[in-house]
Amino acid sequence: MSRALIAGLELGGTKTVVAIGDRDGTVAEEFRYPTTTPEETLAIAIDWWRERGEVVALGIASFGPLRLRRDAVDYGVYLTTPKLAWQGFSLVDFFAKYLPSAKLTIETDVNAALLAELKIGAAQGLKNALYLTVGTGIGAGVCCEGRLVHGMLHPEMGHLRVPRFVGDDFAGVCPFHGDCWEGVASGPAIEKRWGLPAHLLPEDHPAWEMEAYYLAQGLFSANTILSPERMILGGGVSQAPLLHERISEHMRHLSNGYFPDLGVLLSPPLLGQQAGIIGALLLNDTL
Amino acid sequence: MSRALIAGLELGGTKTVVAIGDRDGTVAEEFRYPTTTPEETLAIAIDWWRERGEVVALGIASFGPLRLRRDAVDYGVYLTTPKLAWQGFSLVDFFAKYLPSAKLTIETDVNAALLAELKIGAAQGLKNALYLTVGTGIGAGVCCEGRLVHGMLHPEMGHLRVPRFVGDDFAGVCPFHGDCWEGVASGPAIEKRWGLPAHLLPEDHPAWEMEAYYLAQGLFSANTILSPERMILGGGVSQAPLLHERISEHMRHLSNGYFPDLGVLLSPPLLGQQAGIIGALLLNDTL
Repeated sequence: MSRALIAGLELGGTKTVVAIGDRDGTVAEEFRYPTTTPEETLAIAIDWWRERGEVVALGIASFGPLRLRRDAVDYGVYLTTPKLAWQGFSLVDFFAKYLPSAKLTIETDVNAALLAELKIGAAQGLKNALYLTVGTGIGAGVCCEGRLVHGMLHPEMGHLRVPRFVGDDFAGVCPFHGDCWEGVASGPAIEKRWGLPAHLLPEDHPAWEMEAYYLAQGLFSANTILSPERMILGGGVSQAPLLHERISEHMRHLSNGYFPDLGVLLSPPLLGQQAGIIGALLLNDTL
Repeated sequence: MSRALIAGLELGGTKTVVAIGDRDGTVAEEFRYPTTTPEETLAIAIDWWRERGEVVALGIASFGPLRLRRDAVDYGVYLTTPKLAWQGFSLVDFFAKYLPSAKLTIETDVNAALLAELKIGAAQGLKNALYLTVGTGIGAGVCCEGRLVHGMLHPEMGHLRVPRFVGDDFAGVCPFHGDCWEGVASGPAIEKRWGLPAHLLPEDHPAWEMEAYYLAQGLFSANTILSPERMILGGGVSQAPLLHERISEHMRHLSNGYFPDLGVLLSPPLLGQQAGIIGALLLNDTL
């Protein structure tokens, strides 16, 4: 009889991570490869698991937008997305066919990363937290009163509107909204505005003051709406030197004494690049 | 032996409502009177109940900010508030002394109103909803995945920042932030900007286009962060004719096709002025 596997799958815009491990988030073995079409990407995962045993539980942490409500007829289906090969693709139908023995749990990548940070990372023991990722876009996972938030679909915090930095008339890069939050503060926005990618901009470049302002605006909005106990800043852009301190300073200015120091709520992720796949394994614990 | 009472208490900035009824929200009898000091206001409630029986369960829906986490040492205490007589006052200590037999449950007024709308009103059967009240300030109750949200303290959505209406250079009325959401869109903001209280401004006054813009901005922000299934607009200002239609139009513009029509999520409260006290009674059902 083949070995019973607890599996995790992280589907990112550019890379996919497939793993086996435990329901407590321990990764026993993992494999990373580029994300292509759904059939091709998932076939590689299926083959990788098949060499190791039989998947009995599979947690999937995926980019969105996709339907997460289990009672929806299109549960597990990708909705309108620029990744056209994935639009309309059903994770549920695919795995029902190719891994019929696996109990499936699907989450957004950011909610899974937040789950990992809540269980064994930077938000351990808390019930209200936010996991923000600032990279090729801006996305956020949200947990309120101990439950990961889906809502009608799932939060799409990157499309928040924020007041503009005084003097910044950059049109923004969001194809829908121009200067929404990710339109002015994501990695591509920084690169287009300043002509250099974020990681090549020196610590004292004016880009960082503006970036801190915009991130503070969005996090301040999230604070007024969610009252989180921790706000974790993940993704490439947010790891820039001094950025957390600068964001704290801007939030202090925005708060003007109304809220206690919001800077203390900020934290880098403790699990780094591993948060997503650890979260995917942890999803199997919520069955 | 005296009659066992299920009681509700709604503490508002200007008026207090005391009631007896059922855990299902049915109000058997209620009495409204002005809110003054805590001791005076609550003594009236105690006397009113005492004439009717013995309170065994009491749900309190109160203005804030106040501590709602049951594990906090200052649970049920009013925090920094312009209502100085209430600052530092402990509801828990007071009722432990004067109604020791009553099981106490405390919520914000807006969360209680939302609870009522969720159970028997405009958000019946839903798990993710928002109750916004626009009047002397802007406040919101939030429910995510079936749980009323407290978070670190509780949402203070009125202090959200929103992009300004083009050409509007009104400084705003918030003593902390000037032009935060309630600083530009609450009843007092409307009155100060236009020189007339909201209810005296005719339907075609430019004030309403601007008000719709600002309310749409804040509701759009809430949508990106919470992905609610319903957004209920309560409070005096939000009942103005055509306002919901105008807000829908502004949200459509903000969304630009990214989100499905957000206007369909908007609803007036079904329970009107009764939502708070019905919610207070319903709190006794969550024991």
